[in-house]
Amino acid sequence: VTPDRLAPAGVLGPRSARVRRARRLTGRSAREESGLFLVEGPQGLREAVRRPDLIEEVYVTAVAANRYPGLVAEAVAGGADVVAVDDDALVSLAETVTPQGVVAVCRTVTVPLLVAVAGAPRLVALLVEVQNPGNAGTVIRCADASGADAVILTAGSVDPHNGKAVRASAGSLFHLPVATGAGLQEAVRACRGAGLTVLAADRHADLDLDDAERARLLDAPTAWLFGNEAHGLAPAATALADHTVRVPVYGAAESLNLAAAAAVCLYASARCQRRDPAVSS
Amino acid sequence: VTPDRLAPAGVLGPRSARVRRARRLTGRSAREESGLFLVEGPQGLREAVRRPDLIEEVYVTAVAANRYPGLVAEAVAGGADVVAVDDDALVSLAETVTPQGVVAVCRTVTVPLLVAVAGAPRLVALLVEVQNPGNAGTVIRCADASGADAVILTAGSVDPHNGKAVRASAGSLFHLPVATGAGLQEAVRACRGAGLTVLAADRHADLDLDDAERARLLDAPTAWLFGNEAHGLAPAATALADHTVRVPVYGAAESLNLAAAAAVCLYASARCQRRDPAVSS
Repeated sequence: VTPDRLAPAGVLGPRSARVRRARRLTGRSAREESGLFLVEGPQGLREAVRRPDLIEEVYVTAVAANRYPGLVAEAVAGGADVVAVDDDALVSLAETVTPQGVVAVCRTVTVPLLVAVAGAPRLVALLVEVQNPGNAGTVIRCADASGADAVILTAGSVDPHNGKAVRASAGSLFHLPVATGAGLQEAVRACRGAGLTVLAADRHADLDLDDAERARLLDAPTAWLFGNEAHGLAPAATALADHTVRVPVYGAAESLNLAAAAAVCLYASARCQRRDPAVSS
Repeated sequence: VTPDRLAPAGVLGPRSARVRRARRLTGRSAREESGLFLVEGPQGLREAVRRPDLIEEVYVTAVAANRYPGLVAEAVAGGADVVAVDDDALVSLAETVTPQGVVAVCRTVTVPLLVAVAGAPRLVALLVEVQNPGNAGTVIRCADASGADAVILTAGSVDPHNGKAVRASAGSLFHLPVATGAGLQEAVRACRGAGLTVLAADRHADLDLDDAERARLLDAPTAWLFGNEAHGLAPAATALADHTVRVPVYGAAESLNLAAAAAVCLYASARCQRRDPAVSS
């Protein structure tokens, strides 16, 4: 029996065992051990309460409970354990500069690779050793918006349950299957096994996105490989792809940032796949 | 005569008057008063040395001077005053967690609105009250990459010379004209006067980007209006546009983030404007 189980109900402070245990989830190893992660803020909670299978606990200040009564009620109805905390406890769980009074604990959302690409996917984003959590989350959001069926992050990538990644995904982490932990070769093999053409986004490619569109390469079900934000894709990675494609740079910039390049590529595929053949030909 | 003019040549520390004066440029008001701003890191310096008309001073540690001898030589050849500083002085000028030993002082790059849209522009990005410096810099980079002729930030927007904006632009701040300070109505009037169709990116628009392409709206010279990252464009802003267009969201995401949406819109215009009529029709 841990001390907090004996503690009376009431408003928990930052040193309560329960808050301390939740705070450990800001670290990757604690998330991996427990299979739990933190979702901060009312926007995140709004997504989390739609998934009663995932939401476990909600830590909320009195002010926030009064500000978001509907969300708190939905969390309770969904079976989450809603716990009142004081401001110091909330701040200790939050990672933003101006926390908004609520942090949820959810089960991690990642799925096995073969689950992510099951069911005839049309569009998949495959991130190869992406390091920046904001980039990872933003690409997950872009993939969701573009109608992608899944996102895969290879082994060596940032954890998509990292707080910054969760916030950058703006809820999209809950919207589409995300797989982590597989090596690049295994991930590419799974995509190809799911019937996907594999295109590598590489700024040194001969073929640009407009050429690829004209050659009808973007009409097929596609997995897009995107490389690390600093180094792009290694030659060994582009060698695994069916084609290597660059986003054309018309100005003096050396390249686009990862998330913008991913958005342009994923939307190009979405547009070409959905285009009415009678209009476009 | 200020104290530092009397000081002997040598390695400056963080409390030298010169370093303290440069450090003030981390603040917007000092930048506006002096017409100077800071460019941090070797990548930024590489862009700055290509503009001898803009670079004024370079603060560099001994280690960095030895690491980037070619850049230091180019700065000297371009007429910049190259000043050796100790590590503490460099850290006091730098805004990144791991500074790379060099910070340049450059003249601010912004131009008057009518200069930015001079010369029959084909593509302009107009940011309306954008607040986040990383977003502003990333959109400037995307605009550059897409071949845009200029970027306009309306009055009430973040300063593009902010350190985070400069770094996010990855050099693009030096590549294309950027205008600041005009009100939205004045900016729209200038764009229209330059022959640009004005399209407002608004996620509530009826017309989506694919519709706009099919209707050939994207083939004309265009100024794109992009709203604040939190609130988008106000109705008064969209009312000024010729058409309001949304990036289609095919998944469950509510929207794209500002920079990704701007990248998708700007690249759609670039593609349609450059498309070979014989191939596409």
